[in-house]
Amino acid sequence: MSVWKHWEPIMRHTPRNVTQKLIASHLVSGDMTPGEAVGLKIDQTLTQDATGTMVMLELEAMGLERVKTEISAQYVDHNLIQEDNKNPDDHRFLQTAAQRLGVWFSRPGNGVSHPTHQQRFGKPGKTLLGSDSHTPAAGSLGMLAIGAGGIDVAMAMAGEPFYTRMPEVWGVRLDGRLPDWISAKDVILEMLRRHGVSGGVGRIIEYYGPGLEQLSAMDRHVIANMGAELGATTSVFPSDAAVKAFLCAEGRGDDWQELLPDDGCRYDCREEIDLSHLEPLIAKPSSPANVVPVREIAGEPLSQAYIGSSANPGYRDFAVAAAMLEGRTVDDDVSLEINPTSRSILETLTRDGHLFSLLDAGARLHQAGCNGCIGMGQAPANEVNSLRTVPRNFPGRSGTREDRVFLCSPETATASALNGVITDPRTLDMPYPRIEEPSDPIVNTRTLIPPLDEEKARKIHLIKGPNIESLPDFEPLETRLTLPVLVKAGDDVSTDEIMPAGGEVLPYRSNIPKIAEFAFRGVMEGYAAQARKTGDHIVIGGNNYGQGSSREHAAIAPRYLGLRIVLARSFARIHEQNLINFGVLPLTFVDASDYDTLEIGSEVAFENLRQALEASNEIGARAGDKTLRLEHRLTPRQIEILFSGGLIAWMREHRAA
Amino acid sequence: MSVWKHWEPIMRHTPRNVTQKLIASHLVSGDMTPGEAVGLKIDQTLTQDATGTMVMLELEAMGLERVKTEISAQYVDHNLIQEDNKNPDDHRFLQTAAQRLGVWFSRPGNGVSHPTHQQRFGKPGKTLLGSDSHTPAAGSLGMLAIGAGGIDVAMAMAGEPFYTRMPEVWGVRLDGRLPDWISAKDVILEMLRRHGVSGGVGRIIEYYGPGLEQLSAMDRHVIANMGAELGATTSVFPSDAAVKAFLCAEGRGDDWQELLPDDGCRYDCREEIDLSHLEPLIAKPSSPANVVPVREIAGEPLSQAYIGSSANPGYRDFAVAAAMLEGRTVDDDVSLEINPTSRSILETLTRDGHLFSLLDAGARLHQAGCNGCIGMGQAPANEVNSLRTVPRNFPGRSGTREDRVFLCSPETATASALNGVITDPRTLDMPYPRIEEPSDPIVNTRTLIPPLDEEKARKIHLIKGPNIESLPDFEPLETRLTLPVLVKAGDDVSTDEIMPAGGEVLPYRSNIPKIAEFAFRGVMEGYAAQARKTGDHIVIGGNNYGQGSSREHAAIAPRYLGLRIVLARSFARIHEQNLINFGVLPLTFVDASDYDTLEIGSEVAFENLRQALEASNEIGARAGDKTLRLEHRLTPRQIEILFSGGLIAWMREHRAA
Repeated sequence: MSVWKHWEPIMRHTPRNVTQKLIASHLVSGDMTPGEAVGLKIDQTLTQDATGTMVMLELEAMGLERVKTEISAQYVDHNLIQEDNKNPDDHRFLQTAAQRLGVWFSRPGNGVSHPTHQQRFGKPGKTLLGSDSHTPAAGSLGMLAIGAGGIDVAMAMAGEPFYTRMPEVWGVRLDGRLPDWISAKDVILEMLRRHGVSGGVGRIIEYYGPGLEQLSAMDRHVIANMGAELGATTSVFPSDAAVKAFLCAEGRGDDWQELLPDDGCRYDCREEIDLSHLEPLIAKPSSPANVVPVREIAGEPLSQAYIGSSANPGYRDFAVAAAMLEGRTVDDDVSLEINPTSRSILETLTRDGHLFSLLDAGARLHQAGCNGCIGMGQAPANEVNSLRTVPRNFPGRSGTREDRVFLCSPETATASALNGVITDPRTLDMPYPRIEEPSDPIVNTRTLIPPLDEEKARKIHLIKGPNIESLPDFEPLETRLTLPVLVKAGDDVSTDEIMPAGGEVLPYRSNIPKIAEFAFRGVMEGYAAQARKTGDHIVIGGNNYGQGSSREHAAIAPRYLGLRIVLARSFARIHEQNLINFGVLPLTFVDASDYDTLEIGSEVAFENLRQALEASNEIGARAGDKTLRLEHRLTPRQIEILFSGGLIAWMREHRAA
Repeated sequence: MSVWKHWEPIMRHTPRNVTQKLIASHLVSGDMTPGEAVGLKIDQTLTQDATGTMVMLELEAMGLERVKTEISAQYVDHNLIQEDNKNPDDHRFLQTAAQRLGVWFSRPGNGVSHPTHQQRFGKPGKTLLGSDSHTPAAGSLGMLAIGAGGIDVAMAMAGEPFYTRMPEVWGVRLDGRLPDWISAKDVILEMLRRHGVSGGVGRIIEYYGPGLEQLSAMDRHVIANMGAELGATTSVFPSDAAVKAFLCAEGRGDDWQELLPDDGCRYDCREEIDLSHLEPLIAKPSSPANVVPVREIAGEPLSQAYIGSSANPGYRDFAVAAAMLEGRTVDDDVSLEINPTSRSILETLTRDGHLFSLLDAGARLHQAGCNGCIGMGQAPANEVNSLRTVPRNFPGRSGTREDRVFLCSPETATASALNGVITDPRTLDMPYPRIEEPSDPIVNTRTLIPPLDEEKARKIHLIKGPNIESLPDFEPLETRLTLPVLVKAGDDVSTDEIMPAGGEVLPYRSNIPKIAEFAFRGVMEGYAAQARKTGDHIVIGGNNYGQGSSREHAAIAPRYLGLRIVLARSFARIHEQNLINFGVLPLTFVDASDYDTLEIGSEVAFENLRQALEASNEIGARAGDKTLRLEHRLTPRQIEILFSGGLIAWMREHRAA
């Protein structure tokens, strides 16, 4: 709060929007000019099981005794299918690690991280850093909530600030009222229709205006969650009466505080949506931005409809489906999948009779979790249409290579499941069942385990199954190096190609030596074997190297196998950061055509590397008789990290000092 | 019914037990002396998805137009996890195949085959053949219900009798009343404690006596289901007032008929159990016969408790757990898995508030199906104890190689989940919540699709995903053959070693060319590649060749790769039948030591093979300069089958004639 006080006098003079208030109150370094580097104090963290085991191993490697945040919560929601011991072993490891470090532990079945975090811990005015790209959903309550790589979250848990560049603030004014059969999902699909998957890059989206009044905190969650699909850093809503009503219903009225934009505040750019003009929208395969009105493709057959995920997590989203299905039957050729958000929401739906209606109509009920949204079960059949309320429909994400996944509202998914063809819900012959979030939801915390006190926590022993390996130590970068090129990648190579996910690979997420076997599988055959033979080496990349998922395994696994330097035409931001975090030096060509002069087997030599990096943004290297001109954007802190052997080693030195 | 009339006069004179009445009324060949071959008319069939795709492909290969049974039902319950398109593609194939052939189709989520079949189709006095080893569960209603290989069920669907050897009838008299906290599961565990996993081989177990009065039809299902674990051909209960009450509650009172043992009837062997003397029992890892009283191991920690499966499928089994958990919390270190039996039972539990109690206490709710019982999800962590109400705890069946699975009643599993240690439920400080099966259960048939009429059925086109291959045609056995030995196996080689199951292999269950790649993986490396190079060949086996699972892929896949003859010291019964069904000749050594004279690469020559088989049970063959003396037990019909190229080809000829 000392930081907040520091900024208060300035706030009195300059009208601020909600985003600026949140950033100003957490700024520990830099200034708030868009594009400038800023350091932010982090109040809360969120980790889930797919990224959390690595975070816990990183914290173990750093030697952290206890988290320094106000609240850190570890959720188990992504990988709930247990086909062998690896997954339940990970769950046990996470439970003991959470207890050891003073972290809340949300057991498997307790719920999906984002809505559960909103219900139990969401607090206006706070910052949240999460190792999940949909962390911004908490913006629904007037929080600044950002997704990041695992080790960035680990650093925040250790009390370090989060460093990023100050985004622009994009003010989106909502006017009017949503017509019958149109709901929050259609609002964010309209944003995607207008601006595509990179429309929000370098921006924070802040919603305001009279249209907010009709949107509950959970409706706002839908919109903030899928802000990630616009490429935005995060989305922010004010903390107003709707947020107060939500927190009061959850028994947490004391955690509410008002947080509104000041009169006369400014936005870096602006947008307006009249809710009364929206119609049911749907994103066709295979991009969230491939949006058209449902009516344009009405009548196409479907084989699956899917309700749930963090993109439509509210009681309302299930209850509206239940009310539409009551006494009716799902089409014989459609599998209707119900994926409850959390134990508490499932109990409330059960109490209120909605679960009965869903079951009675023929829905398949799955356990509470992320499930099919991230390809963990419920894959559709080959080349048939699947309508889902989830946030993403990237090709193959469902688990089926030739999938055809559409994104839509629960109203559209349910109407289509009833008719057996894609259906604009406005054409159904029934009154719109307008559902409000309940004023008396069940609040069940029996499977949300609080942190132990410090004395008890110190006695906890981490339980690691045979598949869980502590993080390997990495040596610091040397200042004199001659390394061979082992991989030459083209343009737009994604982290999916550098380090695949999916059912075959993900079970090894806690085991770097094992998962390393799959590295660069999408780029070349036999990389791991070759790297083991060669030792330290270089990878050459084209433009936009490392785009896509933030998974840090795409940096750790190659580093484990000896990757020390990547020379590329350009880097995707998060992967570049992940490389530095694990001690791999990212450099770009000053002359892009130098890319063509290097081949697998070429040798590149560096002299006085540290001194050169510290002295200038441009350094030289020798490849045969040619001198390469190379560029870097490293801060002095990042150079320190590289020559410490990565962020973990740096953190250990730092803490020892 | 004509068959029944034929036997009626005899029945008037000779008092019969229920089993004898069922067999007599369906006998089409042979006589009822134990050990003699008998042919039985089959009224109903049951197939599930793990075995059903092969059955449907076999029926397609036979050219069957429409099933000839009174009722055939195809369930989808085993493999509900959809990690990619293969599984949902199989579900769609089964749905179209069922519609094409006049078969009831139970959609994914509708329920586990055995209890669902009992509720919707079970009928006293009828025979049921199912391609699942727990088919005997339907004995609970006074049916004769037998498990068999897929093609035997396919033959029954085509109207052919089922051929087997007449078993002994084992009369088990039940006296007394079950004390509080003791339930049906403890009765069958007591049988396993006394007699082990082969105590029932060659027998049908028939229960009678005053102790039956207390056991509902679903309690009897528990006992009949796990008769399979005793190795029994099936288990049989009378059709009495409890069966009438069950059918009336399901809205099927008209399907009831009384079926009781005659006064003075005889059993081939006898057993008595006084229910009032039973205590809570538990089968320790890793055999269903490893039974001890729960009190002997009370206090051991556990990590998982599991309620559900066809071995404890009743409303009561879940409601008793719910009543025990109401207002309490599952231990923080135990994952309590709830696997509902069927849509109807889940709805009834929801209506009656029991589902709410389970959720509220912290249970994880899964979709209705077999799930973790057959290793499809819910695998326990490594080397921790898992208490389950399922029928089997063979090593690794849960999916975890080093698993520690215990079998027990819902009462024992729930008590242990509450305490976090293995607990005799009698030691809990609460009154026993005695639950009756409901008199007004929900009956929901919205996801049970009835057969189409013949005209509509003929228009149905089978939808086969890219992983579904029609069955290959196999050539008839030739009468003059010289074949090399390609595999030499030791004693007790199981079908798991000939054709492994599990998550890597099972998805290819509908694709013989693909699954053949895994053949003999447990015996030797590189069989498939070697067989493709060699062509037709011989396999040498030791004693008890082909024991274990009935899966017919263990015969089809090697036959596909050129296996024509197996020479073994002795065969396991079902695998021997499966070999013949797919055109592979099984022969045993007259002189067991001849096994030692043959090696991989030895050539064996047969002359006038058909003539020799027809002429005598002993035939000769040449291996180098040695003459081998070989034996067979083939019936003339089986010889015909072999020289037709297997049962499918034989059936096609037969139907054409």
